[in-house]
Amino acid sequence: MAKPAQHGVLFDIDGTLVDSVYQHARIWHDVLADHGYEVPHWKVHRAIGLPSERLMSWLLGKVPSDSEAMIAEHDAAFKESAPRLRPTPGALALLEELERGEIPFCAVTSAGDETRQILFGALGRELPYSGDKGHSPKPNPSPLLAAANRIDIEPSGLVMIGDAIWDGEAARRAGMHFIGLRCGGTSDALLEQAGAIWVEDAPRDLMGRLA
Amino acid sequence: MAKPAQHGVLFDIDGTLVDSVYQHARIWHDVLADHGYEVPHWKVHRAIGLPSERLMSWLLGKVPSDSEAMIAEHDAAFKESAPRLRPTPGALALLEELERGEIPFCAVTSAGDETRQILFGALGRELPYSGDKGHSPKPNPSPLLAAANRIDIEPSGLVMIGDAIWDGEAARRAGMHFIGLRCGGTSDALLEQAGAIWVEDAPRDLMGRLA
Repeated sequence: MAKPAQHGVLFDIDGTLVDSVYQHARIWHDVLADHGYEVPHWKVHRAIGLPSERLMSWLLGKVPSDSEAMIAEHDAAFKESAPRLRPTPGALALLEELERGEIPFCAVTSAGDETRQILFGALGRELPYSGDKGHSPKPNPSPLLAAANRIDIEPSGLVMIGDAIWDGEAARRAGMHFIGLRCGGTSDALLEQAGAIWVEDAPRDLMGRLA
Repeated sequence: MAKPAQHGVLFDIDGTLVDSVYQHARIWHDVLADHGYEVPHWKVHRAIGLPSERLMSWLLGKVPSDSEAMIAEHDAAFKESAPRLRPTPGALALLEELERGEIPFCAVTSAGDETRQILFGALGRELPYSGDKGHSPKPNPSPLLAAANRIDIEPSGLVMIGDAIWDGEAARRAGMHFIGLRCGGTSDALLEQAGAIWVEDAPRDLMGRLA
């Protein structure tokens, strides 16, 4: 009899499976500066992982009237940076290991259709995903719960893997464990404050540990 | 009688007075990738603040044969990024406050002549500095000791202000206090491990506290 599949894995993509956080940070920094909002790089870095409107309200205290133009400029510049994007260390090998072990997994992403395709292109493969359509985005738990539903696993049987504190907050609110990865440049302390049960460098360090 | 000027302040420039760390990280990441060295962004970020050759040996385990070409490519790209560079929050105000209080200060930088001029240009002013000429660069203490000599203050009367662990290591070896700033994106924990007696966001947070 097969082992009952009562556990599974959810992944953030941006910064977790693809080394994209520093591109987002640079692009948002520059777009904000171009619109007259001077925000230091390290502050922008901390906001990466939030959906665009929420990122702006977190950094600026409001969603400015030129937010749609800024989102369009960010998305165009991110598309331009696509040839520079690489998977994080071990991202592909970990997904293949999970497939071999028949452990269900699903990505949870706030990225729009075009950005998601850029990320899958950088990763070199696609994976099942739960997006924001019809959900409030992370750190709201609803896209994680939709992903749980999609792979038909109870939240308590799922671990969320992410590089941002927003992933941890969403996991906590969804009743899931959270493993934090340093590969988005967030510190151990912030990942642990966000509820991480482990902190590792990159997907490679989770090989053999999610079965 | 005037207060005896037995104390003074040393400053790192890159990342501490100028918000330049994320530019350096991006540029080094891309230059390394162009030469076939795939290093994740967050690892490159941690190496910023080391002089170029040491940065490469720290990341790659060796100084590669194409190191001179990579340094030239980095420096050219950094020059191109100059219009994007801004002072860190409060950098100018803090220097002015020290001048009003007649507290001696000096910058300690590994930057070459051209890069230093770019940084002073971004800052909008110059300040006395001690460079690497004739010294092993940070984290070696000798450029800090040369700066102490230049402003004629004993090391024990000096505080080094920096955003990188390398600044802290150099300060410890020079017998100086170290105040760590988050504005280069280094975590509190790493700055504290490097010996920081305080950790603050940016120069602005040191206003009124260095007299």
